[in-house]
Amino acid sequence: MAIEVDVTIKLKHGVADPEGENTKKALNLLGFKTVHGVKSMKTFRIEVEPEKARGEEEVKKEVEEMCRKLLANPVIHEYEIHVVTSESG
Amino acid sequence: MAIEVDVTIKLKHGVADPEGENTKKALNLLGFKTVHGVKSMKTFRIEVEPEKARGEEEVKKEVEEMCRKLLANPVIHEYEIHVVTSESG
Repeated sequence: MAIEVDVTIKLKHGVADPEGENTKKALNLLGFKTVHGVKSMKTFRIEVEPEKARGEEEVKKEVEEMCRKLLANPVIHEYEIHVVTSESG
Repeated sequence: MAIEVDVTIKLKHGVADPEGENTKKALNLLGFKTVHGVKSMKTFRIEVEPEKARGEEEVKKEVEEMCRKLLANPVIHEYEIHVVTSESG
């Protein structure tokens, strides 16, 4: 009955991503020469209890507020929100 | 012309996730009382250069090898592989 929402926090274009760069280097050294770039991102799967008749749109709006208030840093991050499962609003 | 593949590394069921738990607590304290659980995951977006006639399946197999060799720890992690963009194999 819960709604699961995936929030992907990624770095804005132009922000340095040393973790991704080093992962790319390590993959290249391991022999994966076709890897041209790696970007690291963080994903939170948030389980939200749906109250009464809250729809998917309302939950999405709430999760967006969570990103603004806690999960993402607007200076360097951008985020994507995807509802994964939603059994009855 | 490059293929982008998303690799999501998540903790196996039963493995402690203090980051997720603390995120849940913080969200609850901020007033998001409907949040019942948060799982933290790591995503790598890997850009692979397609050589000659390599198809999506072959790229997926290669990325799976990357997970086994570097990205994931089989003791505590499981992973999902999704091809995001694929313009001509």
